Amino acid sequence: MKLGEMTEPERPFTRRAFSPLFMHGRAFLMRRLEEAGLSTRIDAAGNLVGRLDGLDPSAPVIALGSHSDTVARGGRFDGVAGVIAALEVARTLKEKGRPLRSPVEVIDCLAEEPTDFGLSCVGSRGLCGKLDERMLAMTNPWGERLDQALRGVGGDPSRLSEAVRNDIGAFLELHIEQGPVLEARGIDIGIVTSIVGIRRIEIVFEGQAAHAGTAPMELRRDAAVPAAATLVEIRRLADALADEGRGYFVATVGVIQVEPGGANVVPKRSRIVIDARSSDPEITERFTQRVDMFSAALAFEFRVDRSRFSILSDSEPSMFDRNLQGALARAADRLGLSRVDIASGAGHDAAFLARVCPAAMIFVPCLKGMSHTPDEWADKSAIASGAAVLLEAVLELDERSNAGR
Amino acid sequence: MKLGEMTEPERPFTRRAFSPLFMHGRAFLMRRLEEAGLSTRIDAAGNLVGRLDGLDPSAPVIALGSHSDTVARGGRFDGVAGVIAALEVARTLKEKGRPLRSPVEVIDCLAEEPTDFGLSCVGSRGLCGKLDERMLAMTNPWGERLDQALRGVGGDPSRLSEAVRNDIGAFLELHIEQGPVLEARGIDIGIVTSIVGIRRIEIVFEGQAAHAGTAPMELRRDAAVPAAATLVEIRRLADALADEGRGYFVATVGVIQVEPGGANVVPKRSRIVIDARSSDPEITERFTQRVDMFSAALAFEFRVDRSRFSILSDSEPSMFDRNLQGALARAADRLGLSRVDIASGAGHDAAFLARVCPAAMIFVPCLKGMSHTPDEWADKSAIASGAAVLLEAVLELDERSNAGR
Repeated sequence: MKLGEMTEPERPFTRRAFSPLFMHGRAFLMRRLEEAGLSTRIDAAGNLVGRLDGLDPSAPVIALGSHSDTVARGGRFDGVAGVIAALEVARTLKEKGRPLRSPVEVIDCLAEEPTDFGLSCVGSRGLCGKLDERMLAMTNPWGERLDQALRGVGGDPSRLSEAVRNDIGAFLELHIEQGPVLEARGIDIGIVTSIVGIRRIEIVFEGQAAHAGTAPMELRRDAAVPAAATLVEIRRLADALADEGRGYFVATVGVIQVEPGGANVVPKRSRIVIDARSSDPEITERFTQRVDMFSAALAFEFRVDRSRFSILSDSEPSMFDRNLQGALARAADRLGLSRVDIASGAGHDAAFLARVCPAAMIFVPCLKGMSHTPDEWADKSAIASGAAVLLEAVLELDERSNAGR
Repeated sequence: MKLGEMTEPERPFTRRAFSPLFMHGRAFLMRRLEEAGLSTRIDAAGNLVGRLDGLDPSAPVIALGSHSDTVARGGRFDGVAGVIAALEVARTLKEKGRPLRSPVEVIDCLAEEPTDFGLSCVGSRGLCGKLDERMLAMTNPWGERLDQALRGVGGDPSRLSEAVRNDIGAFLELHIEQGPVLEARGIDIGIVTSIVGIRRIEIVFEGQAAHAGTAPMELRRDAAVPAAATLVEIRRLADALADEGRGYFVATVGVIQVEPGGANVVPKRSRIVIDARSSDPEITERFTQRVDMFSAALAFEFRVDRSRFSILSDSEPSMFDRNLQGALARAADRLGLSRVDIASGAGHDAAFLARVCPAAMIFVPCLKGMSHTPDEWADKSAIASGAAVLLEAVLELDERSNAGR
């Protein structure tokens, strides 16, 4: 709630990465980490890292974290809940007075949300060595380069290799679900199995503009009709693929454009953009083939050309570490919290961390699944339950790591 | 073609009513009318009227005409073809050297196309007494009032009652079809039976915005889906109603809007605007009831609210005079031209004239039905055939009027 107060007053809740407000929030977090007994630093990739040393300096690090930046007019929980939960776990470990064998770190990853540079997950890319020269040269609308901005928050683009972590044995991230499943089913904890792959597909239909009064129905080549029919078929297909239960699947048509867009003109051109997400690339591939088939058939039926069917972007799903999922599940069970395996439909810092170390996530319920809106809400008790799961899992991981020696 | 050259050079073909170019075109037409032996005047409603007196000054006037203004980036035929054909008929009558009993007038109606004042058919409204005080007070974006503009083209808003015609026995208008039927069927002349009534219907669906990745299919309230499904059903219903053949019917959805319109957001709101046109209000009513039913059912199926179903505007069809249609049909038959009865899906000056006198229209074919575009085209021979039909009909009407005495 304190971080929530650090917002652009005109459009709560806005604390975008690299902004003075963001730096204000970071200074607050750094102070809290230090008050809890952690040492703090900004790494070369601009991440804020708090550390509790362990008894064995060579033991792999157990890292916890998320991000503290927001989108414009976002909420107070997306990202922040995970950073605060990590802080509370570290504070509790310190207060217990019995150091772990493993070092424990709290990481506030830089700029997880989309930035004006056109890049997101800047800090977590840096942690896994995926922040490259091309990205550093990206500019915002005011002409500033990302590497300049990185320096401005205390990073060092010339020493990025030092930010790459090969010393982490486990990365755990708590995040609000940003979806309605946990709340709807009354479940405390989502054990995140994977982060979906995302495929964006664009379809364009071209017909012929005509006067809405004088063009008889049988002579029309209305480009809006096959676009609308394709949209409806996509919904029915997505429902069926999700129902199959062979993997997480959702598909959305959030963009439908019709030209020229006058009430008295038969549309000559239409465009839809499809966002398909799955934990299983094979389902996405089947979906794509089916959409390809029926959109072509609908174009034919309504005598228009399907002038484009193209995959705009495509990312593979990230699978989380099975052992860590097990540790988180056992932690929830020991605490008497209900849990369910869940795929994440949104991207998270943990997906990048998964490239350099075992990583996993838990979701906590949020109100009506709302996120990226000032209405975003998660109950204190839900976040506390999640933090308890993190603590319990950290203790088990430290013990097992000890026993493994 | 000469009038076509009088265009804004940057965006052919543009000669909008009230503009200096429009006045330039009118001066050209006035000169041509006078060269053909007609007396000319601008009436109080701003119409350019050319007149050939008849042998019987008390005989009802046979009037021919259309309009010479264009939309922005319009064509060279919409309106102009009818004015030029009327001029040619009058010139031919004069050249024959044997005056008719009836006076013959050529009328270039002022501002048939939509104007910056938000009104169309300004001159033909004046001819039938439907240009009222409210309309005269309408302003363009620069604050000029319509009555001021009317003065600027030679009209007199204080004497509008003098423009109302009760002396016309027949009004005949030639126009390009602005649709593809005559060309597709290889027919020379369309005998226009009526001008359709137009009903505009707006439907709004409201669902719930959600993250395209995290909202499972079964929990979505996607507002785009029922809008798209309604659009498809409208097309199928319109096809069926047109096929029935109980009257002319077309329906178009030229506007579909989805909010917020991001590829990664499940749409929360959608809006479509339907344009339905028929020669028979009963068909439009059946259409409206069916769309009301299935759009409500689709909203229910996809768990969104249909928050609006409203008729934005509604106009009754105008029926043309049966006797005049007969005269035009016989004229075509005598000339060996093929003909078909056709309803007009677009509005025309003749629809206003039909309120004060018997009126009728013929259509001539135009290329691919295109209109309101620089690509608009009608062959010289097609317009000449239409002009010949007008002339032939005028001669029959004058003879019958004579015989009737």
